[in-house]
Amino acid sequence: MVSFGLKTVEWKDNSVIMIDQTKLPNELVYVKYTDFMDVASAIKNLVVRGAPAIGVSGAFGLALASLQSKAATREQLLSDLESARKILFETRPTAVNLAWGLDRIIQVAKQGNDVQSIRDSIVKTAQEMAEDDIKINMQMGKNGSVLFDDNDTIMTHCNAGSLATVAYGTALGVIRATKESGKNVKVIATETRPVQQGSRLTAFELKHDGFDVSLIPDTAVGYSMANKLVNKVVVGADRVLKTGHVYNKIGTYQVALMAKQHGIPFYVAAPLSTFDMKSTPQDVVIEQRKGTEVTQIGDRKTAPDGINVINPAFDMTPPELISGIITEAGVAKAPFEQSIPKLFEAKK
Amino acid sequence: MVSFGLKTVEWKDNSVIMIDQTKLPNELVYVKYTDFMDVASAIKNLVVRGAPAIGVSGAFGLALASLQSKAATREQLLSDLESARKILFETRPTAVNLAWGLDRIIQVAKQGNDVQSIRDSIVKTAQEMAEDDIKINMQMGKNGSVLFDDNDTIMTHCNAGSLATVAYGTALGVIRATKESGKNVKVIATETRPVQQGSRLTAFELKHDGFDVSLIPDTAVGYSMANKLVNKVVVGADRVLKTGHVYNKIGTYQVALMAKQHGIPFYVAAPLSTFDMKSTPQDVVIEQRKGTEVTQIGDRKTAPDGINVINPAFDMTPPELISGIITEAGVAKAPFEQSIPKLFEAKK
Repeated sequence: MVSFGLKTVEWKDNSVIMIDQTKLPNELVYVKYTDFMDVASAIKNLVVRGAPAIGVSGAFGLALASLQSKAATREQLLSDLESARKILFETRPTAVNLAWGLDRIIQVAKQGNDVQSIRDSIVKTAQEMAEDDIKINMQMGKNGSVLFDDNDTIMTHCNAGSLATVAYGTALGVIRATKESGKNVKVIATETRPVQQGSRLTAFELKHDGFDVSLIPDTAVGYSMANKLVNKVVVGADRVLKTGHVYNKIGTYQVALMAKQHGIPFYVAAPLSTFDMKSTPQDVVIEQRKGTEVTQIGDRKTAPDGINVINPAFDMTPPELISGIITEAGVAKAPFEQSIPKLFEAKK
Repeated sequence: MVSFGLKTVEWKDNSVIMIDQTKLPNELVYVKYTDFMDVASAIKNLVVRGAPAIGVSGAFGLALASLQSKAATREQLLSDLESARKILFETRPTAVNLAWGLDRIIQVAKQGNDVQSIRDSIVKTAQEMAEDDIKINMQMGKNGSVLFDDNDTIMTHCNAGSLATVAYGTALGVIRATKESGKNVKVIATETRPVQQGSRLTAFELKHDGFDVSLIPDTAVGYSMANKLVNKVVVGADRVLKTGHVYNKIGTYQVALMAKQHGIPFYVAAPLSTFDMKSTPQDVVIEQRKGTEVTQIGDRKTAPDGINVINPAFDMTPPELISGIITEAGVAKAPFEQSIPKLFEAKK
């Protein structure tokens, strides 16, 4: 039985339906938007998050804007769309996928000859982008599922699930596909401090979808491995270089390092859109986030006032710790300088 | 300049003064008890915690009980003290140091011939126990300080500081002594989920005492080491075996494992009273704690209802990851089966 998992963002009856992720894990609430300004607020306020999910949400926002526009001419509509694009883009200006989703819709709009055909093609393209995201995730899952065995317990870090994509997920998509292939698997989710995507999102979505999932504090990764509670690891990625260096949520590197020490295979699941074939590790700047993520939880202070905090958003996992990188075009293994370019050739 | 750091528990004018650790890091509040029942409640409710601090608090509790007792005879007083001992012991029945502190006072009481001499010797012994704890910590600090260099940045995990002892601390005592010896040192404190002793207590006490301390989430240990932000590590211990296996707060093992991988010396600071010369690793059972420590913070839920949780209180760091074990009798290095017994001989 195939299950997409939760549908994070969806187009339905000329409106956008989203899971309000700010309410998780306490409530599963779907919100409905018909105004692109509300979609912009939703992206800004993290109602929706996760690179692929944000890209598609931006596209849906422009689709709503095209329906809202009172433009009588092609030029008026393109002008209205450009205004909407700017507003949507400003919500998360550093998100690569948001810019990508918005730009793709604007390109499609420019190819239309009249108001109605532009509206039709925008709505159609945005829906295709959402469907493509699911298709890519399912193909990635299928490619990855062969790497996992019956009765494996799989550790994952952060949330690379349905809730970070349109549906199905990347790393969690691989786990879904493994289960769908008839293998019995259990999951260990790390809490993923400071923002707790593991407990708030991964534990929530896997439990919602009927998986056997256990939550651990980030301090218990080594314990779990030393005590043979884990057979394999799979995580997502924010950026993959052509050398196989993987940038992902802070804590990924140490999970990979410990997996290597304990002889546990460590896999990364990432669509080809995540690959950065130009940069080297020297080029990548790690974003440092505000200290209050570490010193308080909600309104509750858990550290003294004015304390110094080191709070990097991401870390870098070097290729020698990675057993394989799972994509929709196949699984790359070391040496990555050779296997990664082949994935792109295979896709052509 | 020598600073004891915060005085966690103290005997003053026939009363017990404690820092209310449940109010940290938001408020530094001292509470004063003249009734041993209030000391029992304080131990039970974690107003005071940390093995050495609890042992001395129990002894102070019995000292209060001896003053409160209306006994006219030696036998009546011993009977009242036995009742008080039971009440104090029941507050944390698995704490080895609490039983040790209470038993020592009862032994002293039994040697007295009359009510007044028993009272006097109990109060004197309890105060000596508090002073001994500080002396041991300062000697341990002195022994450990030679292992650290000027301009070191030292990582520590959990709280092995003033707030876990009467004053000065074990691992943090070593850091204090290093600074007092004229070396400039900085500290990185890990948050130490799930109970956050690193952010709530270690960051608090080091900042209070004027140290340069930075807080990191437990997910950033590997990042900090890979980016050369750390030179050395020192932690405390809950139990040390004669083979050099160290049981300490969950997460210690992975800090040690990563330190080894990055070529960073990893030290343990523990008084000889922490050594268990009889058990083997097969004998030690790791306490599993309630899941709500991981699924919520205060009243705030951060994971879905009914999720499985793996929440071990401690983990085991094997001797091959440990550069040295710092005690009041000297520093043990590998092979520990030889060096640890020598520490006990040296003390005789």
